[in-house]
Amino acid sequence: MTDGTPPGLPDGPVLAVDVGGTKLAAALVTPAGRVGAAEWTATPPGGGAEEIWTALAALVARVLGRGGGVAPAGVGAGCGGPMAWPAGVVSPLNMPGWRDFPLRERLAGLCPGVPVRVHNDAVCLAVAEHWRGAGRGSAHMLGMVVSTGVGGGLILGGRLVDGGTGNAGHIGHMVVEPGGPPCGCGGHGCLEAVARGPGLAGWALEQGWTPGAGGPPPGRYAEADAATGRRLAADAAAGDEIARAAFARAGRALGVAIASATHLCDLDVVTIGGGLSQAGDLLFGPLRAALADHARMDFARRLRVVPAALGQDAGLIGAAALVLAADRYWTATGRDL
Amino acid sequence: MTDGTPPGLPDGPVLAVDVGGTKLAAALVTPAGRVGAAEWTATPPGGGAEEIWTALAALVARVLGRGGGVAPAGVGAGCGGPMAWPAGVVSPLNMPGWRDFPLRERLAGLCPGVPVRVHNDAVCLAVAEHWRGAGRGSAHMLGMVVSTGVGGGLILGGRLVDGGTGNAGHIGHMVVEPGGPPCGCGGHGCLEAVARGPGLAGWALEQGWTPGAGGPPPGRYAEADAATGRRLAADAAAGDEIARAAFARAGRALGVAIASATHLCDLDVVTIGGGLSQAGDLLFGPLRAALADHARMDFARRLRVVPAALGQDAGLIGAAALVLAADRYWTATGRDL
Repeated sequence: MTDGTPPGLPDGPVLAVDVGGTKLAAALVTPAGRVGAAEWTATPPGGGAEEIWTALAALVARVLGRGGGVAPAGVGAGCGGPMAWPAGVVSPLNMPGWRDFPLRERLAGLCPGVPVRVHNDAVCLAVAEHWRGAGRGSAHMLGMVVSTGVGGGLILGGRLVDGGTGNAGHIGHMVVEPGGPPCGCGGHGCLEAVARGPGLAGWALEQGWTPGAGGPPPGRYAEADAATGRRLAADAAAGDEIARAAFARAGRALGVAIASATHLCDLDVVTIGGGLSQAGDLLFGPLRAALADHARMDFARRLRVVPAALGQDAGLIGAAALVLAADRYWTATGRDL
Repeated sequence: MTDGTPPGLPDGPVLAVDVGGTKLAAALVTPAGRVGAAEWTATPPGGGAEEIWTALAALVARVLGRGGGVAPAGVGAGCGGPMAWPAGVVSPLNMPGWRDFPLRERLAGLCPGVPVRVHNDAVCLAVAEHWRGAGRGSAHMLGMVVSTGVGGGLILGGRLVDGGTGNAGHIGHMVVEPGGPPCGCGGHGCLEAVARGPGLAGWALEQGWTPGAGGPPPGRYAEADAATGRRLAADAAAGDEIARAAFARAGRALGVAIASATHLCDLDVVTIGGGLSQAGDLLFGPLRAALADHARMDFARRLRVVPAALGQDAGLIGAAALVLAADRYWTATGRDL
């Protein structure tokens, strides 16, 4: 790895921001993808628009202060969708306080005169895995996150695919069971409806699962939904048959969606991150079996499905890449953003 | 429309070739996409490799002769898959006589010193609709063909997506019914297994369909399978309930796959051509209903699903575009093809 910077790209650190429903994060990221001066804070629960913004602005001020007050070469931010893209006007589903919030404009107010770019948080995770993680070196990759939702980002020909409105990568709303459960999007049978943590836990409860037979789940409780998924994973690991069946059901649904995406986009690699991917073989075993059943075209057999390689910093790294590796991950440059 | 040619692209006609299981076609296509000197011949049924090639070479000689013997600026060819791409070594499923046949090399022998490019026939149809047909002006398009098979080609950001091996666009092998019928690819529940003409007819026969209640089907019998699809369409148009149910089943499957593709790729337009698309509302009605059920994300609501606009020449026009509009439709240029 070198720090050599292609022409036209920043040669200094950029400010990266990761806005989530439970946590706000910011850091300075070098052109080589190294994260420094990272700061985190809880997202004000039930906060109004300005309360959340004030917390984020204070966080950014701390990060810039730790950077010695040097102006960053740009700002990249990941945030939950939906959003108007590339305008960066956000309405994150899990942050009711922000509806049509002008995140890009506000961040530009903090760091005037440099590019400020906002994208979907799942897209940022995919970009991070492609730039510095498990998808590095592949040209045709789908990066997925399986957690309280199921999201993703699509890289084709070595470049991020944005689609007409910046919404490409929504693999969570590929249909895996046409007569399946209702989805938050208003449809039914979407991958997200089947495979998201709360969906799994809800299905297990319907089947008679008694949470906790496997003892307390490991790790800290980031949020109630994820904790439910972790408890289900702990019970599955302890041998609970219903919990295991729930992961098998999710794994099969993931395998079906990945087979479809691979046939449509001729992919090399799929990376899978997010809380539920921590369940390991409980999820990946049924996933690979479904893939073997459904991804049968010769060209699809080369596909590798691998766990995401980056940890908690992935969102920041991907957000930074919107600026630091804009030649590959930002297609809206001509629009003066 | 002007004949203005972007820099680096041919300013004279190219030879276009369209290789199918029942018909071989060739023509000269101008930079504006006009088809001239077109010639057709039947594919030698059950022919060996050299017998088929001799027929194609004779056809090409007639076309070049009608062009006054002037050397074309390049050669574009569409052929059934699978194939090694961009090498143009083809093994069309419906032409057992060609297995690992070096089509590109043979065509280059007929037209030395110019670019010779071979791609999947369904990809050529999609390219044609984007270049000169119903998808013109859209940046994010899926072009589909629904006939004896179900195929497609994907245009994102205004450019053809090839994927890692030139196989992007295989929407026929997206999974629409995880427990569904077996598919020729070895999988099951693929869109093609449900919605291809012979699949529809087979399903209708299983349900007790008596072919012919609607009178003889219109048009000529290009091949037995397509004829079966046309007879089914004629019976459906005449009110046969089972025939109508068969088209409804196919339309729903198409709608589910299109919803999934739209959520994954954030599409503007889907074009649908091929024999079965001639059934009109019998197919498009249930398709649009399924789309309304499943394509629920806000960004997906702008999607337009339209019939393909080009007729019998579409395959030739798309093949020609591999050379004439290579800036958009040929990504393998660096590989000296």
